[in-house]
Amino acid sequence: MTAVVRRPSPAEVRLARAWLSRAVEPGRRAVFDLVTEVGPVEAARRMRAGAATGAVAALAAARREEDRAAADLAEARRLGARLVTPEDAEWPDEALRAMEVAFDRERGEGVPRHQVELTPPLALWALGPPRLDEALARAVAVVGSRTATPYGQHVAAELAHGLATRGWTVVSGGAFGIDAAAHRGALAAGRPTVAVVAGGLREPYPQAHGGLFRRIGRDGLLLTEFPPDATPQRHRFLVRNRLVAALTAGTVVVEAGLRSGALATARQALRMGRRVLGVPGPVTSGESAGVHDLLRSDPEVRVVTRAAEVLEEVGALGDDLADRRRAAADPRDALEPLARQVLDGLPTVGVTTPDRIARSCGVPALEVLRALPGLELLGFVEMTPAGWQLTPAARATPRR
Amino acid sequence: MTAVVRRPSPAEVRLARAWLSRAVEPGRRAVFDLVTEVGPVEAARRMRAGAATGAVAALAAARREEDRAAADLAEARRLGARLVTPEDAEWPDEALRAMEVAFDRERGEGVPRHQVELTPPLALWALGPPRLDEALARAVAVVGSRTATPYGQHVAAELAHGLATRGWTVVSGGAFGIDAAAHRGALAAGRPTVAVVAGGLREPYPQAHGGLFRRIGRDGLLLTEFPPDATPQRHRFLVRNRLVAALTAGTVVVEAGLRSGALATARQALRMGRRVLGVPGPVTSGESAGVHDLLRSDPEVRVVTRAAEVLEEVGALGDDLADRRRAAADPRDALEPLARQVLDGLPTVGVTTPDRIARSCGVPALEVLRALPGLELLGFVEMTPAGWQLTPAARATPRR
Repeated sequence: MTAVVRRPSPAEVRLARAWLSRAVEPGRRAVFDLVTEVGPVEAARRMRAGAATGAVAALAAARREEDRAAADLAEARRLGARLVTPEDAEWPDEALRAMEVAFDRERGEGVPRHQVELTPPLALWALGPPRLDEALARAVAVVGSRTATPYGQHVAAELAHGLATRGWTVVSGGAFGIDAAAHRGALAAGRPTVAVVAGGLREPYPQAHGGLFRRIGRDGLLLTEFPPDATPQRHRFLVRNRLVAALTAGTVVVEAGLRSGALATARQALRMGRRVLGVPGPVTSGESAGVHDLLRSDPEVRVVTRAAEVLEEVGALGDDLADRRRAAADPRDALEPLARQVLDGLPTVGVTTPDRIARSCGVPALEVLRALPGLELLGFVEMTPAGWQLTPAARATPRR
Repeated sequence: MTAVVRRPSPAEVRLARAWLSRAVEPGRRAVFDLVTEVGPVEAARRMRAGAATGAVAALAAARREEDRAAADLAEARRLGARLVTPEDAEWPDEALRAMEVAFDRERGEGVPRHQVELTPPLALWALGPPRLDEALARAVAVVGSRTATPYGQHVAAELAHGLATRGWTVVSGGAFGIDAAAHRGALAAGRPTVAVVAGGLREPYPQAHGGLFRRIGRDGLLLTEFPPDATPQRHRFLVRNRLVAALTAGTVVVEAGLRSGALATARQALRMGRRVLGVPGPVTSGESAGVHDLLRSDPEVRVVTRAAEVLEEVGALGDDLADRRRAAADPRDALEPLARQVLDGLPTVGVTTPDRIARSCGVPALEVLRALPGLELLGFVEMTPAGWQLTPAARATPRR
């Protein structure tokens, strides 16, 4: 018997995504692929019916008979929260597309499987007034050690304050230490900040940050992939970290011990072609040892000491260039050589993928991924469901 | 009337070089070129006679009638010092050749003229038992702020102690702050350290370091291009810095304000293809601001936090590889890919230049300059007056 082909209602879609968010742990590619292929309603139906196959069947087995989707949505409403799905206008499409592209690239290159797959979320539980896409349009992650020193907390707060003052959204994990200092610095600047937490919104972890989370939920956003009553677990922190890295143009690590989870966030950001920056500290401090290691591990990871330097790195293709662009006769002249090269890699007509752009212009795929969001911000390119293409304006400007 | 062609005696050569070291400020290319062309005795004769032309005439005008060469040599002897010249076996040939190569490269590439020319010294006044070439065969510069913090001094001393313990010579400028801490750390490890000072050996500057200089002169080396009674002057510090950079495989900057002379040393080291490393510190410390700026200025400048990391960077082609090499069937297999590529750029027969190697193997000239000393240490290549060539052993090993 084939399934009746009927377009599910928005309410059905939301309910299905709520169900999926509890039925399987986020970040599993097999589930994401099934949802992409058959849609969330049909994917949920198959999983509940025990009709899913392969990896999905195994992933769904434990919780497939549980159905708290309606109750979860009701509880979210009671908490003042909402479930944001890819079908919603505020879904942070572009940021999450980078995650998907990076995953495809790693699969294509045969990169050994990582502990955390770069799989976009199926839905996000959100609490707070800003639209997700708007809050994350210009966002930087500031992350670091839970056992931060007063030095690290001071620097994180200053940095976040400076970023917020310049109109950027500070994203972090709501944890003790650097995370909290970053959120507080941003709030002190009167700007929204986004906490991506590893458990549910009923009692965001850590509970001792209840007051901080209330302020973030009032002026910024609390975000999570987990249903309202989910408890934080070790692997959920890692899965959460990939989201912090994906949702931001760059990740700044302020203090991290050699085994800090902040380093995992940084490595995931690198996998997605995001900027990774480290704030140095005394070499005699164990809380800076992880940052220094990170800086030594990859020339792409750069030293930053203050907000303006962070924006030099992550904002280079955005603001600064946007300013220069207004003055240029041919807007392409204002582009950095690399961005110009990437732009030249797009076909005049039709859509393309970052990988094809890379092959076409001879720029490494990671650099292409880095350049595209800036080029989009400047109005040269746009992302469509089918891929990247030149904007009508860019097509109208003859290339030299 | 043509000059009588007669080979000058060693004593005449030494006297001429002593005279030149007082007659002109060191680091002037025109003088170096004349000395290279006609030899030190004839160069000095022409300058004294007012027969030099062009830039040399102008440079020599002020002091050409003064002759204290014999007195300077006598004073050096009285101080227990000696004048080391390129004619001596202990002259640190290889290190200074890198300076010359870098100068030629900059002239070739039309690099705008720097305040300090990368011109080798005409002679070096030296005080201390070690041979220059031996003391400098494995040497690292540790430099930094005169107004160092206790943190910086602690780190410099630890770093120098660690380097010395591992058999490396610590070179610095004998100044207050980081320099002194570095020298003391090396001395504490019972290893020679080299202080390159910006004035004469009669009363090395700063005088408050009299005790330190006596220890360095007893167990290590005091070095200078200036005659015994020369006083330090601003430009002499800059000229001295180029020598610190040239004589070492890498320069580590430990604390530097934004205008610290240590940054000039680092920039000169980069011009010569030397490794430049920075020890980070608190971003709230003005004494680390210059180091962080340096780290941000060039991806080639890497973060280091301890001696082992310094040697990972500067010693990579030397020791570590030498160890691996013993285990390898074909010694070339032990080489880093880049070093291997450089090696393959040398002709099987005959000499070549770093620039030609660069063109032949497609590795940037700076990288070639970095790789050659290591390849020489490993016995793959050797430097002759006519240029670089494969050693007989390397020629005997068939390339794969």
